[in-house]
Amino acid sequence: MRTLAGKSGRLGAPLSCPTLKLREAVSVYFTLLVAFLVLLGVALQGTNPQEHDFPYRVPLDPRGLLQLSWSVSYPRGEVTFQIALHKLESGLLFGMSDRGDFANADLAVLWSNGSHSFFADAWSDQDGRLHMDPQQSYQLLRAWKTAEGLSLIFERPFDTCDPRDYLIEDGTVHLVYGILERPVPSLQAVNFSALPYKGLQRVQLLKPKVKAPPLPADVQTLEVRAPDVEIPGQETTYWCYIQDLPDGFAKHHVVMYEPIVTLGNQALVHHMEVFQCDAHFQTFPHYNGPCDSKMKPERLNYCRHVLAAWAMGAQAFYYPEEAGLAFGGPGSSKYLRLEVHYHNPLELKGRRDSSGIRLYYTASLRPYDAGIMELGLVYTPVMAIPPGETHFHLMGYCTDKCTQLALPPAGIRVFASQLHTHLSGRSVATVLSRAGKEQQVVNADGHFSPHFQEIRMLKKVVSVLPGDVLRTTCTYNTEDRQKATVGGFGIMDEMCVNYIHYYPLTDLELCKSAIDRGYLQRYFKLVDRFDDEAVCTCPEASVTQQFSSVPWNSFNRDVLQSLYDFAPISMHCNKSSAVRFAGEWEKQPLPRITETLLEPASPCEHHRGRPPGSPTLVQFPTAGAI
Amino acid sequence: MRTLAGKSGRLGAPLSCPTLKLREAVSVYFTLLVAFLVLLGVALQGTNPQEHDFPYRVPLDPRGLLQLSWSVSYPRGEVTFQIALHKLESGLLFGMSDRGDFANADLAVLWSNGSHSFFADAWSDQDGRLHMDPQQSYQLLRAWKTAEGLSLIFERPFDTCDPRDYLIEDGTVHLVYGILERPVPSLQAVNFSALPYKGLQRVQLLKPKVKAPPLPADVQTLEVRAPDVEIPGQETTYWCYIQDLPDGFAKHHVVMYEPIVTLGNQALVHHMEVFQCDAHFQTFPHYNGPCDSKMKPERLNYCRHVLAAWAMGAQAFYYPEEAGLAFGGPGSSKYLRLEVHYHNPLELKGRRDSSGIRLYYTASLRPYDAGIMELGLVYTPVMAIPPGETHFHLMGYCTDKCTQLALPPAGIRVFASQLHTHLSGRSVATVLSRAGKEQQVVNADGHFSPHFQEIRMLKKVVSVLPGDVLRTTCTYNTEDRQKATVGGFGIMDEMCVNYIHYYPLTDLELCKSAIDRGYLQRYFKLVDRFDDEAVCTCPEASVTQQFSSVPWNSFNRDVLQSLYDFAPISMHCNKSSAVRFAGEWEKQPLPRITETLLEPASPCEHHRGRPPGSPTLVQFPTAGAI
Repeated sequence: MRTLAGKSGRLGAPLSCPTLKLREAVSVYFTLLVAFLVLLGVALQGTNPQEHDFPYRVPLDPRGLLQLSWSVSYPRGEVTFQIALHKLESGLLFGMSDRGDFANADLAVLWSNGSHSFFADAWSDQDGRLHMDPQQSYQLLRAWKTAEGLSLIFERPFDTCDPRDYLIEDGTVHLVYGILERPVPSLQAVNFSALPYKGLQRVQLLKPKVKAPPLPADVQTLEVRAPDVEIPGQETTYWCYIQDLPDGFAKHHVVMYEPIVTLGNQALVHHMEVFQCDAHFQTFPHYNGPCDSKMKPERLNYCRHVLAAWAMGAQAFYYPEEAGLAFGGPGSSKYLRLEVHYHNPLELKGRRDSSGIRLYYTASLRPYDAGIMELGLVYTPVMAIPPGETHFHLMGYCTDKCTQLALPPAGIRVFASQLHTHLSGRSVATVLSRAGKEQQVVNADGHFSPHFQEIRMLKKVVSVLPGDVLRTTCTYNTEDRQKATVGGFGIMDEMCVNYIHYYPLTDLELCKSAIDRGYLQRYFKLVDRFDDEAVCTCPEASVTQQFSSVPWNSFNRDVLQSLYDFAPISMHCNKSSAVRFAGEWEKQPLPRITETLLEPASPCEHHRGRPPGSPTLVQFPTAGAI
Repeated sequence: MRTLAGKSGRLGAPLSCPTLKLREAVSVYFTLLVAFLVLLGVALQGTNPQEHDFPYRVPLDPRGLLQLSWSVSYPRGEVTFQIALHKLESGLLFGMSDRGDFANADLAVLWSNGSHSFFADAWSDQDGRLHMDPQQSYQLLRAWKTAEGLSLIFERPFDTCDPRDYLIEDGTVHLVYGILERPVPSLQAVNFSALPYKGLQRVQLLKPKVKAPPLPADVQTLEVRAPDVEIPGQETTYWCYIQDLPDGFAKHHVVMYEPIVTLGNQALVHHMEVFQCDAHFQTFPHYNGPCDSKMKPERLNYCRHVLAAWAMGAQAFYYPEEAGLAFGGPGSSKYLRLEVHYHNPLELKGRRDSSGIRLYYTASLRPYDAGIMELGLVYTPVMAIPPGETHFHLMGYCTDKCTQLALPPAGIRVFASQLHTHLSGRSVATVLSRAGKEQQVVNADGHFSPHFQEIRMLKKVVSVLPGDVLRTTCTYNTEDRQKATVGGFGIMDEMCVNYIHYYPLTDLELCKSAIDRGYLQRYFKLVDRFDDEAVCTCPEASVTQQFSSVPWNSFNRDVLQSLYDFAPISMHCNKSSAVRFAGEWEKQPLPRITETLLEPASPCEHHRGRPPGSPTLVQFPTAGAI
């Protein structure tokens, strides 16, 4: 993995790439630019790039021409990137944008004008045109030719302190890339949106630095893999495959799992999940085919209990040393369902694949069983998002009353989390509050994508005590929709869920909420009353029908948002999806949060300007001297 | 005015002030600090302070110990301050805070430890304690002893680019000051809130650089002055005095006016206004006494037409060369009312005062009469602010329909503006929109204080054309109130007004709005419906009573805010306060604004970090070299 980073770190004599041909005219502007560059070229040679070790890697493009590796330094607040381009081209663009657009992206660009190559920090405007960034935040550390193409190593702070730059945060980052196939007279001549070869890749750049606990001596492995599948020649395939455990397989603990990706298919295997089937059914058919096929047996819908999940760019998943995920034994189904999402935008045909997940498990049970708890909103149409919204939010609560009742006195320890919405979800965050005061973020993704739903290790294990409140907020974009989007299971309905992974296992499986139905009915009456054309969102209709009758305008939207932020809730404080803990769970007051978390301190505040905080010694001349 | 700034700008030999006595112990921390200072002391001597010219001045404190003068450089984006302390003390604090609090203030501090004096940029925390600012944004240019005390000259950018610093903007700035009466071991030992001598002064720091047009050759002056009044020994006095114009005084144009402040009373005379009385009354009594006295004749309430207004720190007010404010002649009352606000927090007794305003007028009428138009909200209880709010906003509109009807084809030119609210007002802004797009800010004050309502010259004359929309937004703070604050004339009621000064004069005197009454009644019904305890905000009650029956909570508050931002309006497009232009003015749609103004570019974006935008020349070593 590290062969690209050799020992000879200094830049040698200038040598232009064979593909670079001299352009006929160099503009006056460009001449001036080059004058600068000589100085900078020297400065760059003066830097002393160290050996780099890139623990994370992901293919950027489906052809596998661009391979990204990266490392993260939390003490320095910087990411170091290595890009290997496996073909000699005239340049490349790499960067980030809010949601993967080619417009308004923050970019590092390597380009050739035919005689020289340049590297710069640039940005694309709303039309995709490139501009030099006045503040150069990407710093090139090395550049060299390889047998196939070239490699670059460069670094960038998480926060460049330039408010126009992309801020690298925890959670999803939408990486964008492009290849320049011809020399360009200048950076300004490039339009990112118009490049023929460009794309988007989602990753979590700021991986947590969690130390992998040692594996037990008796660890065994089980590979749950697609059996030499021919990947369909279409953009999106979810492949389903049922595999079973040996008869009489006793209770074990999964302590780690890792992806197995068939060599050459790294750019096609988007994500994989292993589910355990429902133990209420004696058998499951051995299906092997697309998940959306009409041939797929209905019963496979009962294989929904997540055992393992992996997405592109993710690494091995380790359970904490004192816990493991139980599988096998009485009350546990022997059937596992593997789901592989093949993302094949080039519609390559005939590619064969045996990717899957390797489970590492042990018979020496660890002290605690790990569990998965569902936080957020109940799947119900009473929680809805008006159409045409760019950032409407819904909040789901796990109340103090529920945690008080259901959690052990010492609480639980949350070590991982998987955020979940359907197609209009744009951000998800769960915050822990204690005695009305927000304490910490459990997991948050401000650039959440429904197409990239990893299980993420938390940077820090979060303790949840009885009486704590967990509030999960999801933000949605329904700009392109004509009707209200209601909560529900359908792909066009919405969800707001955080699956938290924790130990020790408790009976509490679901801790979610939804607005009280009575209050929502008052809302529909209000809408009728305010609407001059007497539309009826009549109570005999279903809630979904009522929502679709609302004549949406800013007032009806605002009032719905205010109502959701105010009205009492119905709590699902459940042992399983249908069994509540004993108690009164209807018309519960919203947990009061009186103190919110402060914004994290920016590294930019004390970063520049005049010399750091020291007073000036004042020497008073006498009045007479003036 | 400029005598304090002498020629010998360099700092001479160190000389501590006579009052500074050596402290016994210097902490280790402080020793380290001093090591820094030697370097900085040298650096300071190396700077080359230029001659300064301070066009603006204001006393900071009621005793007149601290005199502030300042100048503004727009090209450099800096304010240069001179503070003269007319007494030898151990130090002083000067700075700014959001609304004049001593906590969370951004400060320049001069202090002595008994043997040396220091100057630094500091800030006070929420308890008032001082801390050194890691980024030193106040730069000391000169410091010298005077016969009475000392003087300092220092400068500071409007925007220091430190997000924790105060941002100097157009509009009101709350200056805070304090005097250190004893040496202090360190800056950190000072608590601003605990100082015995401290205070607040409001000024417009960023005065517009408007060139004063030449005065006509035949200019005459009229002094409207308090007749040797004994200032009452109480904190607040509004003094009323009636003065009349000569009989048969013909129409003239006021072209300029300036304050006359009795020497020694600069710190007591807070603001002054000259009003013209209503021409419908033949005579007005010659009253001379406090405005709130029971002895004041009722009729003086009909002297409300503003002729001139001045507030502390303001300079002379010039009309544009082609316009003047008409007074005298038929239809104009010969009676003028002078109102002087004496602010006497030390309750000084026996001070005599003859302050007033000197009007410069001409009989050679200029091409245009100037006018004053009232924008914002109608004075009606239908516009209300819930109690307990920190920043509730109300918006008043001057609609396209009204400007289309009432303005001349070439439009009007607005050259000055006076913002007005009652006690809970915190910010006021008027924005001009054309064809749904915001064009420019007419006048805005983000730190507006109801205690500082100057007429301000605009930095740039604003043209308003037929069909334009003027939206005035006021923000209120009702944290300390128990009941809703409704619109109205009372001091505990609220207003949202921008008096714009413009020419040529038109018939349009009032262009204001309020929510449609029917929509507000629907709101009260909604409140009844949502309230479980069946409070009745019954329609037979007055609107004020209905508002006082609302059980305020976040939902009722949010819905009211949404309703105001949505419901149709009743327009007052009036020739005088009671006479509307012909047309339908009820249930008018809110003007649609589809494109809002962008935030002004911050000077901080392209300001720091690595060298400015130039690419790096990349030199590729051959693959073999690695």
